[in-house]
Amino acid sequence: MEKLALHELWMLPYDLEEERAKEFLRRRGAGRVGVQLPPGLGGCWPEIGATLEECGVEGILVGSSCYGACDLADEEALKAGCGALLHYGHSDMGLPSRLPVLYVEARMRVDPSPAVEDALHGLGYKRLGLTTTVQHLSYLENLRKLLLSRGFEVHIGKPSGRAKYLGQILGCDVGSATSVAEKVEAFLHVGTGSFHPLGVAAATGKTVISVNPLGGRTVLSAAEFLRWRRGVVAKALSCRTFGILLSTKKGQWRPELARRVEKELRKEGRKTMMLVQDEIRVGDLKDFGMEAYVCTACPRIALDDARSTGEILLTPFETEVMLGKRGLEPYLLF
Amino acid sequence: MEKLALHELWMLPYDLEEERAKEFLRRRGAGRVGVQLPPGLGGCWPEIGATLEECGVEGILVGSSCYGACDLADEEALKAGCGALLHYGHSDMGLPSRLPVLYVEARMRVDPSPAVEDALHGLGYKRLGLTTTVQHLSYLENLRKLLLSRGFEVHIGKPSGRAKYLGQILGCDVGSATSVAEKVEAFLHVGTGSFHPLGVAAATGKTVISVNPLGGRTVLSAAEFLRWRRGVVAKALSCRTFGILLSTKKGQWRPELARRVEKELRKEGRKTMMLVQDEIRVGDLKDFGMEAYVCTACPRIALDDARSTGEILLTPFETEVMLGKRGLEPYLLF
Repeated sequence: MEKLALHELWMLPYDLEEERAKEFLRRRGAGRVGVQLPPGLGGCWPEIGATLEECGVEGILVGSSCYGACDLADEEALKAGCGALLHYGHSDMGLPSRLPVLYVEARMRVDPSPAVEDALHGLGYKRLGLTTTVQHLSYLENLRKLLLSRGFEVHIGKPSGRAKYLGQILGCDVGSATSVAEKVEAFLHVGTGSFHPLGVAAATGKTVISVNPLGGRTVLSAAEFLRWRRGVVAKALSCRTFGILLSTKKGQWRPELARRVEKELRKEGRKTMMLVQDEIRVGDLKDFGMEAYVCTACPRIALDDARSTGEILLTPFETEVMLGKRGLEPYLLF
Repeated sequence: MEKLALHELWMLPYDLEEERAKEFLRRRGAGRVGVQLPPGLGGCWPEIGATLEECGVEGILVGSSCYGACDLADEEALKAGCGALLHYGHSDMGLPSRLPVLYVEARMRVDPSPAVEDALHGLGYKRLGLTTTVQHLSYLENLRKLLLSRGFEVHIGKPSGRAKYLGQILGCDVGSATSVAEKVEAFLHVGTGSFHPLGVAAATGKTVISVNPLGGRTVLSAAEFLRWRRGVVAKALSCRTFGILLSTKKGQWRPELARRVEKELRKEGRKTMMLVQDEIRVGDLKDFGMEAYVCTACPRIALDDARSTGEILLTPFETEVMLGKRGLEPYLLF
């Protein structure tokens, strides 16, 4: 097990795969390269800049937010005269690109085993599904062994398409959980934030023990999540005007879905307004004055961003629930 | 002088030029049309939607923020399958577009004469320059006559290129003020917000009496503005790392300027990072960890948005001042 002193952890908690990046840069021979960094990796710029400099390549940070590989800024990079793109923090989800792209997953160099071991105390389940995000995937096999050695039965599922690895969860791909849900009593998820484990709980109906790799656990209940969403759907039911949100982000662009939602809402007598934006910010929705919104972009926007605001924001699936076309369970992210 | 009852004012304070829009829609024959609305006009959507419906046209709201005609969302509209674009709230600044565009200036139906009359009490100047934004231009001639009848000398200048009308001010075009600055003692500006009159004060060195058309006046002093900017420039002088901000918005895309700033900063031993984004949000800059920033997009970002944050954010002109290439006066917006 890799050990790091605290100052090393502070300096470089992520594997930026410098050698692989250098090889890619040399092979592509681009003089100018776009770089995409998700918010949490902004501090890695000096290291990345040094790698680029070593290769005699000029780097340009492209794109605003970058919450997933769905947000591929190849167009912006092309516009800025780049010949290639380095996308950090996410695994390749197979989107077409107008430029050669290297996905650097930026796996975290922090062994989550101690945190997981702590989280197992008093756990009332024996059959566990194990999920994580790409940052912690290098430790998945270690974690599986650890759980087995503590007498648990462990199941690691297969993603549905967008996620790349066994056990990996994305906001829009919880196949690694649903594919083994029937075999397990609960899920153990390793990662930070509540969005990913919430997706697992919602889509499987099982409790999720979410372990922060730096320590601490949170228990997420599907029942609580469903109660919340049922309330939002009920509120939307009495709304007459709906904004339908469509994002131009490459992997979130779903015009057919937006049209379908629009058609269904209009058939049921609702007024609709279609909104096309790059980044959808929940805080800006009040400017448009609709009573409710349906987001066809990332499910995170309805299920995480909108949690703290008063906006009534549904996913397309929840819109069908509202219109009586299906039940809220089994809950689908799309 | 047009008189409106309070409820009419509430319902429709802007002239949305329905007939002109209908003619444009009929002439273009597009089945789907993009609509751009600046934040303050979001509430006009029902009226605009009704106009579109009458013409059998489907409307899609495109683009996020829309602070000026520089933010032309023709690409987004094209992507969303639109055949034409209605851009509200700004005058045409002559940007090329991939779609036919109708600019609806959304002039305000509120006569600012009473507010201006109030603001004249005790004014210690006789020779005034008169400026305004496109929203209030229909009343410019009335205001000129009012000022003349009160014994003032009135000068209305010519814009430099981006603004379209005599007396009109944009954040990036204060030619209507600078072209008559030598003839006047002070400026009387009609409009809301402090960004436009601040630009006039900064570029002319004269005091600006800014009159809100709904009532109230603010006096903006060039000296105070220059003191503030001098302080920001002084702080930037000791910074070693600079982020150079470049916006992909059609009328704010200035890659040559960004390269020049980058070159000049590097020549003086500063480390730089180029950032390409659609919308630049000052609040997000902390993610990038640079000590200071230079914004090559809208001057509003440095001179208005950044006022309330701790970020050291310069305009390209101020960067030259910092590097000792020129003085802060005469102050240039670009």
